[in-house]
Amino acid sequence: MTKRVAVIGAGPSGLAQLRAFQSAAQKGAEIPEIVCFEKQSNWGGLWNYTWRTGVDENGEPVHGSMYRYLWSNGPKEGLEFADYSFEEHFGKQIASYPPRAVLFDYIEGRVLKANVRDWIRFSTVVRWVEYDADKGDFEVTVHDMKSDTVTRERFDNVIVASGHFSSPNVPEYPGFDRFNGRIVHAHDFRDAREFEGKDVLLMGSSYSAEDIGSQCWKYGANSITTCYRSAPMGFDWPDNWEEKGGFERVEGKTAYFKDGTTKDIDAIILCTGYRHYFPFLPDDLRLKTANRLATADLYKGVAYVHNPKLFYLGMQDQWFTFNMFDAQAWWVRDAIMGRIEIPADKQVLMADVAEREAREEASDDTKYAIKYQADYIKELVAETDYPSFNVDGACEAFFEWKKHKSENIMGFRNNSYTSVITGTEAPVHHTPWKDALDDSLEVYLQN
Amino acid sequence: MTKRVAVIGAGPSGLAQLRAFQSAAQKGAEIPEIVCFEKQSNWGGLWNYTWRTGVDENGEPVHGSMYRYLWSNGPKEGLEFADYSFEEHFGKQIASYPPRAVLFDYIEGRVLKANVRDWIRFSTVVRWVEYDADKGDFEVTVHDMKSDTVTRERFDNVIVASGHFSSPNVPEYPGFDRFNGRIVHAHDFRDAREFEGKDVLLMGSSYSAEDIGSQCWKYGANSITTCYRSAPMGFDWPDNWEEKGGFERVEGKTAYFKDGTTKDIDAIILCTGYRHYFPFLPDDLRLKTANRLATADLYKGVAYVHNPKLFYLGMQDQWFTFNMFDAQAWWVRDAIMGRIEIPADKQVLMADVAEREAREEASDDTKYAIKYQADYIKELVAETDYPSFNVDGACEAFFEWKKHKSENIMGFRNNSYTSVITGTEAPVHHTPWKDALDDSLEVYLQN
Repeated sequence: MTKRVAVIGAGPSGLAQLRAFQSAAQKGAEIPEIVCFEKQSNWGGLWNYTWRTGVDENGEPVHGSMYRYLWSNGPKEGLEFADYSFEEHFGKQIASYPPRAVLFDYIEGRVLKANVRDWIRFSTVVRWVEYDADKGDFEVTVHDMKSDTVTRERFDNVIVASGHFSSPNVPEYPGFDRFNGRIVHAHDFRDAREFEGKDVLLMGSSYSAEDIGSQCWKYGANSITTCYRSAPMGFDWPDNWEEKGGFERVEGKTAYFKDGTTKDIDAIILCTGYRHYFPFLPDDLRLKTANRLATADLYKGVAYVHNPKLFYLGMQDQWFTFNMFDAQAWWVRDAIMGRIEIPADKQVLMADVAEREAREEASDDTKYAIKYQADYIKELVAETDYPSFNVDGACEAFFEWKKHKSENIMGFRNNSYTSVITGTEAPVHHTPWKDALDDSLEVYLQN
Repeated sequence: MTKRVAVIGAGPSGLAQLRAFQSAAQKGAEIPEIVCFEKQSNWGGLWNYTWRTGVDENGEPVHGSMYRYLWSNGPKEGLEFADYSFEEHFGKQIASYPPRAVLFDYIEGRVLKANVRDWIRFSTVVRWVEYDADKGDFEVTVHDMKSDTVTRERFDNVIVASGHFSSPNVPEYPGFDRFNGRIVHAHDFRDAREFEGKDVLLMGSSYSAEDIGSQCWKYGANSITTCYRSAPMGFDWPDNWEEKGGFERVEGKTAYFKDGTTKDIDAIILCTGYRHYFPFLPDDLRLKTANRLATADLYKGVAYVHNPKLFYLGMQDQWFTFNMFDAQAWWVRDAIMGRIEIPADKQVLMADVAEREAREEASDDTKYAIKYQADYIKELVAETDYPSFNVDGACEAFFEWKKHKSENIMGFRNNSYTSVITGTEAPVHHTPWKDALDDSLEVYLQN
C-alpha cells in the first residue's frame, strides 16, 4: 500500500487516528504512510497546558484553552478508551474526575505504548491544503518552525483533527473599548489565583462559565457574577455567586444589566464559546457547520460530502469525547484502507446527513441528545474492529453526573462511577474538590 | 498601464504606499491598479486601537499592540509628512507628543484627502503568496472574512506592509508555567489602570518597558521593577521604580534576580520585542533579517534581492517612521512604474545591501545611527518627487528628545520642537504629561 495520509493535529482526535492505524498494523495489516502535523511542540492538543496566551513562541495563535487546576467536568467513565483502560494505565482504578495532568498522562500512555510519536512532525503548522482534481490527491503546504522552512507534500487523504475548543468566539459589547479592568476570553484564562479578591463577571451560561466561575470561587474571588442570554444555569450557587440576565454595557468598572441592576466588577471573562477555524482550507474543502450533534456536510459525521477523501474528526457538539473520537478514527481508518466503502453517489452522502439532522432535531431533551450521540458511537463501532463496549453504561454515568451536578454544583466531583470497560467502581477521591487545591498527578493518585 | 499591484496592510506603511500612487495619478500619471488587503476592519494599522487581545473576531492574531493612553514617545517633528503637515490637518500647530487618537486622526486625514479608501479590501486576510516564474507574476490567495470566501488573484508586484510591531517575541523563563499572577506581553497590554496598586515587573529595557512602565506608574501602580539583560535604561526613575539586572526565575509570586535579590510581584509584562512574521510567504519570498537599520536582502532597504518584484516597507529598525515610510513608498512606486530602474544583476543588489550593512556597523553611536537613517531617507527622497524636507532638522529634534529624556524621563513630553515642514514652533502642551489622564483628541487640542 503506497497511500499517504496527512493527519492535522496531535490532540485527542489526531492521536486516536494514529492509534487506529497502529492498531491495524499491529494486527498484521499493511497501512498507509501516516504523517501527522502538530503546531505545538508536544502532543495532547488542549491537554498540553501552556502558560502562553494570544500567540505562541512562533507567532501562531495559541492552540490551547487549558487552564491551571482544571479537573474533568464529566466523569472519566464517560470517556474511557475501550482499548486502554484507566486501570491498565495507572495499575489501579482511580477517582472519577481527574485533573488535567492525570488525563494528559492517560492519553499519552496509550500512544507511548503504540509507539507512534515518530509519525508526528511537531512545531509544524499546516499553511494550506489544496485538492488537485486532476491527480486526485491533496497538496499540503507546511511550515516547519524549527528550521523555518516551508515545504509541500502530496497526500491521498487528509484528516482534519485540529480541535474544537481552540479559536474563541469573542463578541463585543458597548463599553468594552473603555473598560478599565481586564477583559479575557476563556481561551486565554490561565490561573484562577489571579482573580483572588476580585469581583469577576463571566459572560455565558455553558461549561466555561460554570467551570471557570467555580475555579475563581474555589481560589478566592470576592464575588462571581454570571450572565446569560437565554436561560440561567440554575444551579444552587454559593452565596457570593449571582446569575443575572442579559448584559447591556459596561461604564468605567460598572456593568449594567437589562434588568436595570448594576455590579461593579474588576474583570470580565468571556465564556462565549469557540468557533470552527480552518485557516488552511480553501472554500471547496472548508467545513462550515453550527456546533451541533449532526454536523453539516459530514457523512457518518466524518467524511466531507463534497470531497470524501477529506475527513474531519470531533467537529460535533460533544457529550462523548475520547471514546467518540476513537469510534470516528477507527471508522475513518477503515474507509481509507478500503474496508468500508463510502458511497460514490453524493446524494446518498447528503441523505445520510439530512437523516442525522432530522433525528437530532426531533427532541430538545438532554437525555435524548446523550443517547443520540451514544447511538452514533455504537453505529460507528459496529462497522469496525474497535472493541465494543457498554455505551449505554457510559450514558448512565452521564445521567448520574447531571443529577449530581443539580444536587451540588460544588460537590459533584466527589462522586464515583463504575467503569464500562473494566466493570470496576472508582474510589471516592480522598479530598472534596473544593478543598483540593493541589491538582498534581501525584496528589490525585494518593487514593 | 495594466499592471496590478497588491499592497499587504493598510497601516502607516501601506497607506503611505496608497498615497504615493494617488499622488502620481493626481499629477496626471497613469498608475497601476492597486489592491490593498487589510486584515482589520479599519485602516491605521497599529494606530487602530482595539480592546481585543490574542486573536481577533475572525480568529486571526490581533494585529495591534496599541494600548490606551499612549502618547507618541518621540516628537511629532521627527515623523511629520512632508506632503501633509500637522498644521494643514489640524488648522493650527499642535503640541509635540500627540496621543494615539490625535496621530490616528492625522494619518487618516491624509488618506481621506487622497480618497483611496476604496482601494482597500478590509477584513481580508492574505493566506498565501506564490511567485509564478513562468508567468512572471504573483498568485495571491486571500480570505474575505465578511463573506467567508477564499479567492485568488494575480499581481505583477506585491508590497509587504504588514508591520513591524505586531507579532510578539515571547521568551519563557523558569516558573512561568506556575506563576500565580498574570503574564502578558506588551503586545496584549491594554489599560494601565488594570495595574493600579499592583507590583509590576517589566522584562526588557527598550521602548516598551520604558513606556508601559511609565504608564503603569502614571496610573497608580504600587511599584515598577524593570529588568535588563545587557544594560539598564539608566533614567532618573521615580522612587517606586527600580531597575534590576538579569531575571532568573519566578516562584509563587516572588521574582528572583541574578544579583541574589527578590521582589514580590503581581504581574509580569514581557517587553521583549517583536518578530518579523510573514505566515503568508513561502521560503523564496520570505524576508529573514535581524531588527537592524540595514535589513538583510533588501536593495535600497525595500526591494527583495531574490525577487525584486517583491517589496517590503518599514522592515528596518526605526528612528524615523512615517516620513521614512513615505520615502520608501514613493521609491517603490517609481520602481514599479518604471521611473527608477532596479539593476538586473543580483550581485549589484547584494552589493548595495552589503555596503549598507558595513556602513551601519561602522559605529555603535546613537547619533550616528540617527544620521545613518536620515541619510537613507535623503537618498530615497532624492530619487523621487517626494517633497524634499529638512531631514537634518528632524535629526535635531531627535537629538533634543534624547537630551530631554535623560533630563526628565517623566517630563520629556512637556517639551516642544520646531516643524521642519512648516517652520512653526509647537506650543507647549497645556498640561504636564504625568498629570494629563484624559488622552482624548478633544482635550489634547485645547491649546
